[in-house]
Parts: sequence; structure tokens; C-alpha cells
Amino acid sequence: MAKPRRMVVIGGTAAGLSAASKAKRLDQDLQITVFEKSGYISYGACGLPYFVGGLIEKPEQLVSFSVEEMQDKRGISVHIHHEVLSIDRENKQVTVQNMKTGAMLVAPYEILVIATGAVPVRPAIEGIDIPRVVFLRTVEDGILLKGYVHDTQRAVLVGGGFIGLELAEELTQAGVHVTLFEAMDRLLPFLPQSFSRKVQETLDAHGVTVHLNAKIARILSSNGVAGAVESVDGTQVKADLVVLSVGVHPATALARAAGLELGIKDSIVVDDHMQTSDSAIWACGDCAQMRHIITGKPVHIPLGTTANKMGKVAGSVIGGEKDSFAGVLGSMVTKVFDLYIAATGLSLNEAKTAGYDAMESVITKNDKASYYPGGEPNTLNIVFDGTSGRLLGAQGYGSESIAGRINVLVACITAGMTVSQVNDLDLVYAPPVAPVYDPILIAASQALKHVGRS
Amino acid sequence: MAKPRRMVVIGGTAAGLSAASKAKRLDQDLQITVFEKSGYISYGACGLPYFVGGLIEKPEQLVSFSVEEMQDKRGISVHIHHEVLSIDRENKQVTVQNMKTGAMLVAPYEILVIATGAVPVRPAIEGIDIPRVVFLRTVEDGILLKGYVHDTQRAVLVGGGFIGLELAEELTQAGVHVTLFEAMDRLLPFLPQSFSRKVQETLDAHGVTVHLNAKIARILSSNGVAGAVESVDGTQVKADLVVLSVGVHPATALARAAGLELGIKDSIVVDDHMQTSDSAIWACGDCAQMRHIITGKPVHIPLGTTANKMGKVAGSVIGGEKDSFAGVLGSMVTKVFDLYIAATGLSLNEAKTAGYDAMESVITKNDKASYYPGGEPNTLNIVFDGTSGRLLGAQGYGSESIAGRINVLVACITAGMTVSQVNDLDLVYAPPVAPVYDPILIAASQALKHVGRS
Repeated sequence: MAKPRRMVVIGGTAAGLSAASKAKRLDQDLQITVFEKSGYISYGACGLPYFVGGLIEKPEQLVSFSVEEMQDKRGISVHIHHEVLSIDRENKQVTVQNMKTGAMLVAPYEILVIATGAVPVRPAIEGIDIPRVVFLRTVEDGILLKGYVHDTQRAVLVGGGFIGLELAEELTQAGVHVTLFEAMDRLLPFLPQSFSRKVQETLDAHGVTVHLNAKIARILSSNGVAGAVESVDGTQVKADLVVLSVGVHPATALARAAGLELGIKDSIVVDDHMQTSDSAIWACGDCAQMRHIITGKPVHIPLGTTANKMGKVAGSVIGGEKDSFAGVLGSMVTKVFDLYIAATGLSLNEAKTAGYDAMESVITKNDKASYYPGGEPNTLNIVFDGTSGRLLGAQGYGSESIAGRINVLVACITAGMTVSQVNDLDLVYAPPVAPVYDPILIAASQALKHVGRS
Repeated sequence: MAKPRRMVVIGGTAAGLSAASKAKRLDQDLQITVFEKSGYISYGACGLPYFVGGLIEKPEQLVSFSVEEMQDKRGISVHIHHEVLSIDRENKQVTVQNMKTGAMLVAPYEILVIATGAVPVRPAIEGIDIPRVVFLRTVEDGILLKGYVHDTQRAVLVGGGFIGLELAEELTQAGVHVTLFEAMDRLLPFLPQSFSRKVQETLDAHGVTVHLNAKIARILSSNGVAGAVESVDGTQVKADLVVLSVGVHPATALARAAGLELGIKDSIVVDDHMQTSDSAIWACGDCAQMRHIITGKPVHIPLGTTANKMGKVAGSVIGGEKDSFAGVLGSMVTKVFDLYIAATGLSLNEAKTAGYDAMESVITKNDKASYYPGGEPNTLNIVFDGTSGRLLGAQGYGSESIAGRINVLVACITAGMTVSQVNDLDLVYAPPVAPVYDPILIAASQALKHVGRS
């Protein structure tokens, strides 16, 4: 009998556990060990703002599978509080530290999967180590932050991305006064300027104070904890809680030290099968580089869906199945109070940068028949190539149904459709659900005025 | 100066007015006259059940443009209560009767557009002419029916299609006890059997009595108005209101008398530019035949979206623009109480009949992250070719978001995607809007077990 292959997985969240589960399902002989630095595995990090806000009560609700389930049901050995300190590619082994006991161990592998994710960017400002100055990335971060909420009067959120916006909603609903600082001239900079204004109006309407073009200089302490935030122009805002969410970068220190090839933002270079420059090592999730479906170029857009899919592809290939990752469009959605915002593909600027004859066209249209009560406006911007008519991107806001509409355009972009072909889609219609010409068709028809039928 | 072209349009709802408006916009010299038999133009017939139920108060709310607006703003002459009695193709003129005065007139044309729509099927049963036995097709039908609702205790609806189901909801909510008779063994027969059962359960839960395999024999009168309905097996159900909605057929008596080529269900044969077998005559909307996008074969699926689009294509071509109709997938959606049902493309049976190695795969999955409160199940069935993996159809029910999901699959089917390609779609994700693997991806992944990656 052949010696069973040993597979080591570094990181026990979306990508790592998808890889482990899929590989084990396909090849029961694999001996799989997962090392996870934190105390939680298999959690939905995207749910953390809702845990902090109280919509989700216990951290366990965010967890899909416990360590015991992974071991007993799936036959995968999982070690939490275990940090991998180094990868020895020559001898095919990793050195691991038990963070509870300090004990060191060495784990040999035939197959290594790096799924170390991403870590929050720590801005180079004074005071980020003061108590009640936090990041939100892990369940532990969430528990810490949630513990602060009940005695917080005023929170400052630094960074107007999705996490910042979702936290603004959740903390406001928990009774905290929120001030949001964004260093750029708008929120969600991949959206058209008017969309960012709409998001800002929604925040305003719910009592969130927004400062744009506001770079943080330092965080001031008061009685040994966060007391205020000062921006570079000298403005001080009182805050008994500060959350920093100014982006993430791939957690690839281990991979770098091991000499693996790194790409965009130091993410690990992988092929479509998630294999790195070392054929015994796979990488997947937020630590790995992706290929953009439209441009074919490498990108790093860390999202939960992508992490899960990349993990599954790695696991399939390791398990002996033919599989490959199709790439990303950077599709995303969020909810800020009663406003839903979604986007996919290229923004106008990204499309221009990529060399397209990029144009955009924006429309607003109710999401139900005009005469049916309860309709809400959907605003939809589509980005297309003026020469070929090819659809390149879409951004929208409005009611929850905007998510489905952006998903329709995901399919259209993936299929390489022109706006003329989008205009011809036979979409469903009924007065309680959509107008006879869906906002998608209105947007395409509007774009057709620039490019003509194809 | 050249003599201006005269364009006559028979029918003043979706298709006819779309054709007229588009043509006039492109060619201001066109002299356009629209004849409409009823007293209303430009109304959303799909809104009639909601007008009857009271959700929409006045019939005028269903109307997009009044006769005056068409004339003053668009320069199109519109005559309501005018019925076209015959088409004289040789002399290029139509004979029209003013139904208010009885006066006859002759209208010459260079271009004729037939947009006569469809009329309800009148089943061959005794008693359909008794008062309080009605159809629901025109605004006048709606006004008549609405007038009966306030003093109706028990209504029988004959026919379990979309109109029957929407009326069941609306009449129930207006306080009427509703019994629904369906001649076939299930409601909405293009849906999988289990879906039809779900629809029936929803009706049951809201107090609607459903009789399947129940063919009506006759309607009995009581004091000169509807009193009861008797099925062929002898069951009698009391009813002081009976609504017959057992389908429609194309209103093509005029076209037939004029010798135009007719096709499926006697609908008017048109090319992709909506031109009939007579090059001076166009036809569009529910009276015309369509091409199915998947099979390429002629079909007759009368829907509001299709009527509008066909009218627009006819108007574009008449106005001198290049345009053609891309065909239909028969995409549809409806709402029955709190259940949304949507479908597109081929059902399993249709796909088998069309010669495909047809298979189907059904899944149920929540429409939000499992830990996010308020998620509702979406059930999705996809039909695909077992040999090529090509997606052929999809049907779903659940929350309102099912409509957007079916629309994503509309785009996928139109693009000729395989289930493997659907599985790779980079759809949006956020806990309040979708699970990390959208129901669409779960359905595709499930189907992949039968066909494998492509």
C-alpha cells in the first residue's frame, strides 16, 4: 500500500477549510491537518459587523463547522491557537507553535495549502495601540469590539469602505453616535461620484457624521483609553471608541520568507488551479492573487465568495479532479441602513485604465410597475466600450432588488455581451416585482444611444 | 416634397402604441392614426387584478398615456371606440366603425400595423353569458368585475394560470371566499409538480379552495345571475361571481380574413423585423408569432414585455432604423400572497420534446447568510442538457428575490452558458442579501454532479 499523502493547511477559515473539505471528500486517504492561529475556524467574517451590532447574538452563530465536526464528520484534524512560524520547502515541513502552551512542533507535508487570508492595514499614525482602538477582522476582534459598544457614547470609524459603512449602521442602531473619517474625496471610490453622495446622504439621514478628505494624524488618549481623533488639518473629534478599517493586505509573510513568488500587493502568485511557484504548495483565498475576468490581468480583490471558491478549486485539484478558477469580477454588495449598493466589473476609471474606449450611462427607474404601490427607485450605472458596445461594469443602488440586477449583469459581462444584447434580454415582468421595462433594459437602451445596435 | 407616408395602427395598447411612438420619433413626417376598439389605450393589463382587488384605485392609474397626450405631445392621432372591420390589402385601406355613432370610415395606409392582441378563450360550457360571469382582459372587464366584488360572498375562478392566481389573492384580500377550478392535474403546469404543490399549499393557507382535475360542465344561474358552478363530475359549488381565465388566443380574425399567413395558434407570422407576409403590413404583440431563443422554433407566448418590445422593433424598422426582435424565453413571474414564482426557458418536458437530453436538478437554499435574521428559502429548479451541459430553463419560488435569480439565468440561457459556466459566476455576496454561495451557484453545482465541468 502506498504511503498516504499528508496535507497541511495553514488557515482554518473559508479558503483553507473549503480546500481541506473538498480534497478529503475526493480522496479519503489524504491525511489533512489544519492549523488556525485564532480560536475560531470556519466563521463568516462578513457577519462580524452584525455580531458587533447585536443582530447576531453569539459568535458561534457565525461558525459553520466546529473543530469537532471537522474532525468527527469530515476526518480532518484541526488545531486552533496554532501559528505556523515557517515553511521549510526543501524538507517539506512547517514549524508550528501552540500559542496556548508555547510548544513547538514540526509537521511534514506532501501537499501544503496556504490560506492565511489578509490582515488589516495598520496606518502609520500615533496612538493606534491605545486601548479601545480596534480593528475588525477576526472573531476575537469582534468580541473585543462588541464588549466596548455598551459603554460607548461616540465612535470614530476610520475608513469608508464596506466594513466602515456596515459598522456605521450597526453602531448607530446600537445607540452610538458615529463619525466616519474617509481620507479620499468620496465613500466607496469604485462608485460614480453621485453614488457616493447618495451613500453619504443616507448616512447623514441616520445621524452619522461623515468627514471626507479627512486623513487621521493621531489618536489621543484620555485616562489611558481612546479619547479623541485628530485629523491632519487639526480637527479633533471626541471618541471613546476608534475602529480602523482602511483596507487589508495579504498575509504573506510566511510565503515571502519561504521564497514563493509574490504578485500584486504581495499576494501569492497562483495559476488557475491555485498552484504556487512551488508545485507542492497551493494558495487560496485573500492571501492569493486572482485573475480578472474582463482584463485577464492579475488583481487582488479579497472577498468571501472568492475565498470559498478558490479553496474549493484547490481541494478539487488536490483531490484529483479537473477544476480551475474562472477569475473574478470584483462583484460586491452591501447594505447601509435602507440603502443597498452593489457593483461588478470595471468602474469607468478602471475601464479607461485598462485601455477601453470606456463610457458610462446612468438611469433611475422604479423596481415595480409605476402604478403598483411600494415601488422604490433603482439607480443603475453601466460601463461599456464605446467601440464594441461590450458591457464592462455596472454599479447600482436602491432597494434590495438591486443585488439581483447587478447579478444579471455579472452573467452578461461574463458572457461578453454587448449592451445591445443586454437590451434584448427577456427578463421577467409582473407589476409587484418589476416594471415592464426592467431598469436593466432601460440602462441598456440608454447606452445604445451611444453605441447603436450590434 | 414627397407625399407623407400614412401609417395606420390597429390596437392602442402596449404593442400598437410602442410601434406608433417609436416610428413617429424616428420619422416626424409619418402621419399615424391609431384605432382602438375599447375606451382605453396604453394601459397595463397585467395590473388589472390589482385594480380589481383595490390595491390600485382608479383605472386611469393603469394608463401610461392619455389620448390627448398621444396627440398633443407625440403627434399621433388616436381614436378610441373605433373598431377596424376589414383590411383591404389591394387598395391599402381599412374600414373602421365608430362604435359610439355607428358611422363607418375608410382609412388608407402605406404602412399598416396590426396590434390586435389576444382575446380570452371562451370555453364551450353552458351559462357563460349569464350576468356576473366575467372575463378579465380589458379595463372595461376590470371595471365590471370590480363593481361586483363588494357584494360577492363566494367567487369561483376557472383556470389556475397567472391571472387566476393573482385574482385568487386579490379577491381573498377583498374578503371574498374563492374557489379555484383547474382542469389539469396541477397549477401552473410549466412548473415541476412539487412547485405546483407549493403554490397550492400557499392558496390553502390563505383560505382559497383549489379543485384540480376539475373541468367545468356548466354555470347555473340564480335569480338571473351566476349562482353556482358545476364540474363534469357533478360537484356543485355556490358562486355569486364566476371569472373565466382559461387562456387567450391571438385576435387574428381580421388578419385571417385579409389572407395574411398565420402560424402557431393562428398567430400572425412575422419575421424578426415584425413584417408579415405582406410587406406593407407589420404585426406585433399578442396577435403575432414569436421565435423561441433556445429552440429557434415559432411559439406563441403572449406577455406584456414581449408586446412592448415587438412594438418598439416594428416602430424602429418603420422609422428607418436597423432593429430586430431577439425572440423570447417565455420568462415570467407572479406573486401569490407571500409566494413569488418565476420561470424562464424550457421546462423539463419542453426540453425533452425539443430533443434535448434533458435533466433537471432542484435545490432549496436561504436567500441570506444562514446566521443573518429574516432569510427565506428560495427553491430553484434548473433544466439542462445532460450531454452538453447547456442550461435550458429554470423555475423558482420563494421570496421576492427569486425574480432576480431567474433573471440571472435568463442572461445565462441567452448567452448559451453551460451549468459549469453558471457555477463559476462571480455573484455578489453580503450576509443581508445572499448566502456566500448564492442559490444559483448551489443549483449549478448540484447539476454539475450529472454533467461534470466543461
